[in-house]
Amino acid sequence: MTSAPAVSTVQPIQWLGDRLRLLDQRALPREERYLDCRSAEEVAAAIRGMAVRGAPAIGIVAAYGVVLAVRESPSSFELASSVLEASRPTAVNLRWALARLRSLWMGGADAAALEAEARRIHAEDLAQNLHMAELGAELLPEKATVLTHCNTGALATGGHGTALGVIRTAYAQGRVAQVYHTETRPWLQGARLTAWELQREGIPARLVADGAAAHLMKRQRIDWVIVGADRIAANGDTANKIGTYMLAVAARQHGVKFMVVAPSGTFDPDCPYGEAIPIEEREPRELTEFRGEKVAPEGQDAYNPVFDVTPAELIDAIVCERGVIEKPSARKIAALLAG
Amino acid sequence: MTSAPAVSTVQPIQWLGDRLRLLDQRALPREERYLDCRSAEEVAAAIRGMAVRGAPAIGIVAAYGVVLAVRESPSSFELASSVLEASRPTAVNLRWALARLRSLWMGGADAAALEAEARRIHAEDLAQNLHMAELGAELLPEKATVLTHCNTGALATGGHGTALGVIRTAYAQGRVAQVYHTETRPWLQGARLTAWELQREGIPARLVADGAAAHLMKRQRIDWVIVGADRIAANGDTANKIGTYMLAVAARQHGVKFMVVAPSGTFDPDCPYGEAIPIEEREPRELTEFRGEKVAPEGQDAYNPVFDVTPAELIDAIVCERGVIEKPSARKIAALLAG
Repeated sequence: MTSAPAVSTVQPIQWLGDRLRLLDQRALPREERYLDCRSAEEVAAAIRGMAVRGAPAIGIVAAYGVVLAVRESPSSFELASSVLEASRPTAVNLRWALARLRSLWMGGADAAALEAEARRIHAEDLAQNLHMAELGAELLPEKATVLTHCNTGALATGGHGTALGVIRTAYAQGRVAQVYHTETRPWLQGARLTAWELQREGIPARLVADGAAAHLMKRQRIDWVIVGADRIAANGDTANKIGTYMLAVAARQHGVKFMVVAPSGTFDPDCPYGEAIPIEEREPRELTEFRGEKVAPEGQDAYNPVFDVTPAELIDAIVCERGVIEKPSARKIAALLAG
Repeated sequence: MTSAPAVSTVQPIQWLGDRLRLLDQRALPREERYLDCRSAEEVAAAIRGMAVRGAPAIGIVAAYGVVLAVRESPSSFELASSVLEASRPTAVNLRWALARLRSLWMGGADAAALEAEARRIHAEDLAQNLHMAELGAELLPEKATVLTHCNTGALATGGHGTALGVIRTAYAQGRVAQVYHTETRPWLQGARLTAWELQREGIPARLVADGAAAHLMKRQRIDWVIVGADRIAANGDTANKIGTYMLAVAARQHGVKFMVVAPSGTFDPDCPYGEAIPIEEREPRELTEFRGEKVAPEGQDAYNPVFDVTPAELIDAIVCERGVIEKPSARKIAALLAG
């Protein structure tokens, strides 16, 4: 097997010592604009406003947000943590990263120690992604055609990516011949961000409307659907970007395999099954407007859940940095996390 | 049972004797702009450019297009028919309407007789829609929650609508309490046109992203998915707007009933099954741009099929003006069409 490709040159999260510089993902692919955050509140606003998104990425930036807060005033730890934790409800990586800092803080760590921990969370995420990419790529046949959803690349993580990391590595190994990726309404992370990342590396990619995926699976050979995760319950039920569940249902109908790629920080052992995962609903105007312009008529109501839950029985493999869980179950997941 | 509601006041297709006036659906809901067509070529351009869309509507306007041509020059019948027939490949209503005119023309009819036939096709479509609406509404339970896709209302037909006609009538009868409708990428016929029609009549409606439909079915009670059709094969396989097949797969997974509403002109007895239906693919830029603005990066490729095929086994009922076919099969369809 060849080695993993060079890490993507995209650096969407840059810790500059006194501030956190974020590539503003709302402006991509039109513009590479950066946003400097100097306080936990500014970091929380960037998360809420989706300048930064992707479960691993928001865990990393939330950790840096706490560092900014305690540097300013040690007494602000609790407030900063709770503001950051509330910034997006579904992804568990956010809570998990904050819990790592809390545990050090309770043990008497100072701001410098928290900063070192935040940098460690960041670096670990990249290392985990590179390792998961190797594990996931091994599951693919030669010259595979894969379908991915949303953006799970360098932009969504500490670098390389989860599902897109598998695709990147597998492409470098000659295992992936063609990528299809959904638009991912309403934020168009697929059309904007995944397209941008794949194009930078010359990986052959075709965009499809979210609703075209079942037709695509019927008409073309698709070997695997590969997605990320925002939270994985103890039984393997997986919350991810809205539309993922529909892809999983369509994949099963067409005999297409379904892979979830996520670091172990995405597992929530306290959450027994998917129905217990809180699903964020965002404003109707994400559907009724496009870049501030009305699409639907004035006053149109919309139901805008941002995530959905794919039951474990529709998942063929969960790839995390500790290993691959085929046909996930509570027992297999507990064993892997304990191991 | 109460009577059908008043026919919608929307008049998207107006025959003015010397020209055909079309409500330009590309400008809705922002603007009610009309387009006057004075030749068959102008009508074909309006169909190709999607100023008018919806299988029944394009059948009607194509018939008027032939009338405009033979008025100008009787020798232009063949050319006009073939230009109009080629304007969209999937909908069979177009071919069916043109065949009705051809049969008269071959029998020696003049331009005035063709005009009368075009007006009859238009009027029949409205009458059929009102009748189908009654038949379809009877299938719904009291206070039903329904999900529809694309636009199948007055804008897509000779008036009232097919699937949306059922919803309109059922709402007036108190049988529908809540409508969900998809955005319908990439043209957003749901967000723009269905939203506009439902809002004009005060029918409670919520917009959802196409990819959110499976999640919606899991979390809320949806009684029926109700859609139109662009062509129905002899065995009941149904071509309709891209995304329909995915909704049918999700509906079956969740025990939600699936209804297709289409006049008998939508059946294509020469087409044995769905795989034989030609599926129009349109330009990538319908996905990579929005109102002329780039969304995806420059040079992005896309796969943009405009229709998909829902196999008969996923359809609980096909409603046409001749009656309701439950669990459609080649035998039942042939019997209804012969009857």
